[in-house]
Amino acid sequence: MPTVNTKLERPGKAVIDELAALGVATIHEAQGRKGLLAPHLRPIYAGARIAGSAVTVSLPPGDNWMLHVAIEQLQDGDLLVVAPTSDCTDGYFGDLLATSFKARGARGLVIDAGVRDVSVLAEMNFPVWSKAISSKGTIKATLGSVNVPVVCAGALVTPGDVIVADQDGVVVVPQAMAARTLENASAREANEAQKRAKLASGVLGLDMYQMREPLAKLGLRYID
Amino acid sequence: MPTVNTKLERPGKAVIDELAALGVATIHEAQGRKGLLAPHLRPIYAGARIAGSAVTVSLPPGDNWMLHVAIEQLQDGDLLVVAPTSDCTDGYFGDLLATSFKARGARGLVIDAGVRDVSVLAEMNFPVWSKAISSKGTIKATLGSVNVPVVCAGALVTPGDVIVADQDGVVVVPQAMAARTLENASAREANEAQKRAKLASGVLGLDMYQMREPLAKLGLRYID
Amino acid sequence: MPTVNTKLERPGKAVIDELAALGVATIHEAQGRKGLLAPHLRPIYAGARIAGSAVTVSLPPGDNWMLHVAIEQLQDGDLLVVAPTSDCTDGYFGDLLATSFKARGARGLVIDAGVRDVSVLAEMNFPVWSKAISSKGTIKATLGSVNVPVVCAGALVTPGDVIVADQDGVVVVPQAMAARTLENASAREANEAQKRAKLASGVLGLDMYQMREPLAKLGLRYID
Amino acid sequence: MPTVNTKLERPGKAVIDELAALGVATIHEAQGRKGLLAPHLRPIYAGARIAGSAVTVSLPPGDNWMLHVAIEQLQDGDLLVVAPTSDCTDGYFGDLLATSFKARGARGLVIDAGVRDVSVLAEMNFPVWSKAISSKGTIKATLGSVNVPVVCAGALVTPGDVIVADQDGVVVVPQAMAARTLENASAREANEAQKRAKLASGVLGLDMYQMREPLAKLGLRYID
Amino acid sequence: MPTVNTKLERPGKAVIDELAALGVATIHEAQGRKGLLAPHLRPIYAGARIAGSAVTVSLPPGDNWMLHVAIEQLQDGDLLVVAPTSDCTDGYFGDLLATSFKARGARGLVIDAGVRDVSVLAEMNFPVWSKAISSKGTIKATLGSVNVPVVCAGALVTPGDVIVADQDGVVVVPQAMAARTLENASAREANEAQKRAKLASGVLGLDMYQMREPLAKLGLRYID
Amino acid sequence: MPTVNTKLERPGKAVIDELAALGVATIHEAQGRKGLLAPHLRPIYAGARIAGSAVTVSLPPGDNWMLHVAIEQLQDGDLLVVAPTSDCTDGYFGDLLATSFKARGARGLVIDAGVRDVSVLAEMNFPVWSKAISSKGTIKATLGSVNVPVVCAGALVTPGDVIVADQDGVVVVPQAMAARTLENASAREANEAQKRAKLASGVLGLDMYQMREPLAKLGLRYID
Repeated sequence: MPTVNTKLERPGKAVIDELAALGVATIHEAQGRKGLLAPHLRPIYAGARIAGSAVTVSLPPGDNWMLHVAIEQLQDGDLLVVAPTSDCTDGYFGDLLATSFKARGARGLVIDAGVRDVSVLAEMNFPVWSKAISSKGTIKATLGSVNVPVVCAGALVTPGDVIVADQDGVVVVPQAMAARTLENASAREANEAQKRAKLASGVLGLDMYQMREPLAKLGLRYID
Repeated sequence: MPTVNTKLERPGKAVIDELAALGVATIHEAQGRKGLLAPHLRPIYAGARIAGSAVTVSLPPGDNWMLHVAIEQLQDGDLLVVAPTSDCTDGYFGDLLATSFKARGARGLVIDAGVRDVSVLAEMNFPVWSKAISSKGTIKATLGSVNVPVVCAGALVTPGDVIVADQDGVVVVPQAMAARTLENASAREANEAQKRAKLASGVLGLDMYQMREPLAKLGLRYID
Repeated sequence: MPTVNTKLERPGKAVIDELAALGVATIHEAQGRKGLLAPHLRPIYAGARIAGSAVTVSLPPGDNWMLHVAIEQLQDGDLLVVAPTSDCTDGYFGDLLATSFKARGARGLVIDAGVRDVSVLAEMNFPVWSKAISSKGTIKATLGSVNVPVVCAGALVTPGDVIVADQDGVVVVPQAMAARTLENASAREANEAQKRAKLASGVLGLDMYQMREPLAKLGLRYID
Repeated sequence: MPTVNTKLERPGKAVIDELAALGVATIHEAQGRKGLLAPHLRPIYAGARIAGSAVTVSLPPGDNWMLHVAIEQLQDGDLLVVAPTSDCTDGYFGDLLATSFKARGARGLVIDAGVRDVSVLAEMNFPVWSKAISSKGTIKATLGSVNVPVVCAGALVTPGDVIVADQDGVVVVPQAMAARTLENASAREANEAQKRAKLASGVLGLDMYQMREPLAKLGLRYID
Repeated sequence: MPTVNTKLERPGKAVIDELAALGVATIHEAQGRKGLLAPHLRPIYAGARIAGSAVTVSLPPGDNWMLHVAIEQLQDGDLLVVAPTSDCTDGYFGDLLATSFKARGARGLVIDAGVRDVSVLAEMNFPVWSKAISSKGTIKATLGSVNVPVVCAGALVTPGDVIVADQDGVVVVPQAMAARTLENASAREANEAQKRAKLASGVLGLDMYQMREPLAKLGLRYID
Repeated sequence: MPTVNTKLERPGKAVIDELAALGVATIHEAQGRKGLLAPHLRPIYAGARIAGSAVTVSLPPGDNWMLHVAIEQLQDGDLLVVAPTSDCTDGYFGDLLATSFKARGARGLVIDAGVRDVSVLAEMNFPVWSKAISSKGTIKATLGSVNVPVVCAGALVTPGDVIVADQDGVVVVPQAMAARTLENASAREANEAQKRAKLASGVLGLDMYQMREPLAKLGLRYID
């Protein structure tokens, strides 16, 4: 059953990079509020915003052997998504693995578990979103799979999906939806600039969005 | 039942600003160790210390409609305190709402839920204390209330109370107690400077606070 | 039963400082993956890496009296390890206590509870690893013990053990094992430099660690 | 500041008992979905459904002294509501205190902390809703207050409020609202019997509540 | 986007019932340790063991409108799987909905959120696996989808999959795998009876599974 | 380093059984409020109260191989204490292992992880205190140690210590302290019978323990 799928259709890099520029919250909205990974995934250092094509790993608690297997499948522009088969905070990943990832052109790591060597990872400018920071070492004894669909932090990720990650969290965009989501997200973004200017000038959302009437209809009472 | 109270007695700005300068821990002590919000509320970026007059919002899980209603009630020097009616980590608040808040002169946000666009909020220098960071969008379907007493992160907040927030957390000072609390806190602060100097010079708290006798009486045994 | 053990065999400072330089993850590995404190202990500010000889405190929830007793036992190069007898997030420690700690030459604090005044502690460059940040004040009413074995964040700490703490967490090295652990850890570190260079040049861990054969034997299937 | 308020206006027992019969979910609905204590409060044994007039206690973490003080304030038909000033799972309450409670006619305990002797409490038929079951003993060193407003498990409880607790959780009904809430809840209950019969006969809520049109209007699409 | 898929291929009832008889742990093993929902889902009363064909619901936090829509899609032998789009403990489901479920022949409910009226549900013998028990009412304002793939408690559930639930938890068996999983699970079960007899007679697993040699090879040392 | 210590000094069975009869809370008090395991350990079914001589196991997350090794070390009257080296909720233990345990005369299991087959375990009357109930299977790949000191749920347990477990939780009594603890606990128990009678007759703890004066001295104010 443990399998490595070596053929992977990847989305175009232009789409990936444009999605990265739009950020997680906008993309999440643009695809109908879907695809968000749970907010317990946090960046290990401030400031990173990346996107990449997902290479996925399903592996056991406390065992990082499959990360070595996965590295060989990484290409320039990829990002690794790691989902243990049960809850685990162990430190699956550190600076040696990150060195290998960088040598392959990988852009970052999203892992629903722990990582370590976070000071070095920050110096290397290698971004990670994880559930924990922990020095706990892992073993290399049991197989898992690479490039199979995984549920990571509550979201289904299929190999070749676009993953976008920033300070707000992590979102997955199914490959087939990437172009449309980019379009929607760009439109939304453009639209937001206008709104921002109005709001900055003091216009109220109550008026800009014409909320007063529906609020009144539902029975909102003002007392003075 | 959903209500917006538009008339709000606010504390003087001088009191608010002097309380901000004293910080959360000192104020919490000065009012008899009361009024602390639970420590799961954390600042979204480092360094902010603010105080403001509380405008409060009670709203449903996953629905931020009342934030738009609340903005109209915000005045210069206010701070919004938001309490969902059940546990929720969704991203109720982002950069567009912050733009509106700033246009009204609001000083910040305390929310027992999630926020998003945290990188932009940091650039805008708009401080938020929240339970989570999450991109999860919210809807605008159900009413709540503005400027009613709320329980936020375990503490009762009444509209017009002073809220002080810094890197140690968030504390509420009932408006009627603000002056006395300021007095107590200032006295405490003055007192601390002296203590700090003594302790820095090597004097032990055991001696400075005359603890040796009560410790011995209770039976503390030294072994060598 | 409440006891202060005033005689404490300490490890040599050279060993302590060399262990600090190697960091938590390497030391944890070098002593057979033992001694790690739970990852809920986090540094209150980024960047610190320290080591010290453990002075230990067992004390009640919400009562920091024994910290004053412990300070008198601190010597230059020590580090305090504090374990409440039941779960507690209260702010046991703040800038006044830190001033005293610094006057005694203490290097830092590891506490399975909360601390406060974290902005000032950062300015003082006084590193703390804690479970929470909370302004909640503590009382001085009940005795505990100083320099007895304690379980802190799931790890047994004996007075005089070496504690190493960095951005990856906290590890305890039993005093009797300090020299051997240092030796193992240094060897491991030396070994890592070589590996890092190879991996950076694009050599795969699969090849460097000769993993392909054992993976195949266990049944890993490649599909294309 | 530590205070015991000995004069307490209590609601009538008839109202209390009728509210108990209606149960927590119905009452919560009947008062506009307010007053629910957080669901981490669970009954220590199955089957109990009680109501009582609240005597409240605010006390420190790990210190149950004020429970002894509170007992003297308990009257027949009362129920104790206990809120520590910070998070605590210690075992504040056991069979000896329960014996005293029963001697005073108290109906039960709601505590946002731990209790012990739960087998004996079940045999005594003394119902408790708590956050934890823990043998951890508490001390008697620090004062708190009895019959002051407290926030317990996220809800504001004022002395003399009606507390209703069953297998679904705990709800507080402000004394002034007790009669009206009872009326609303009874109406709701009566109404539910009809609905239950219809639904049991196979009528769909979609039809009974006329939901098809609003669902279609909002865009719900059926695919076959 | 909110959709109700009304055509649903269901697995045969014989397979479903035989899977129920085998239980969650055995089935989880038999399908290669896949498909387990997270252990925070717990039965609301002891003793139930059921299986059914999954009808799935994706819905917003605090809004149970889609449950009414889903009921119409339930057939005899079905089981509802409910996944909110963000973390929520509100009481989505109670005795009225259960009455409707029973009228449609539904066998139970698996919900990654809260339920209420648990005493009545137990009397009705209507089994539920949930994350919480909470009286908190939900609204009917926002659409979701019925019979779309959902991630529930960390596992992907597709409409028409077999769900098995007992005191050990909940597992999903993809419809296409149901027959093979049943075969594997039955073989495993048969095999276990033999093992159980041997172990009961005092034979050690060390000998029965021939573990002594591999343990020795890996370096396990016995000391006496 | 993985070791099985086969020689184990055990406490007398009479002491063990008398400690069981006294229960966890009383024993915890009698030994100075020490030795309690964290309250997240809960019994898998109601009613059990046991004690036994500890055989201990330290093992990896998700790997139960060492349980098979440990069984050979179990003797009549023993109880197994299992501590994974990092947080894990997997189902390490089920009915087959319990069958072996019973064949060896083991009295029960305390495990800071998950177990499964809980319905069968209840039928077998085999008591377990665990952190979770989970069907998640574990592997047999990595060594650990048997009969070494372990930290289990925050408490240090040495092989041959007495473990007492009931509905209130789990406590460890160091072997050398067993006789004295039994004596203290028995005295305490005897003493409680008297107190219980007094309290049942309506005497207040305030009077029985002479608390009124110290309360008044500390400043407790009664208001009417």
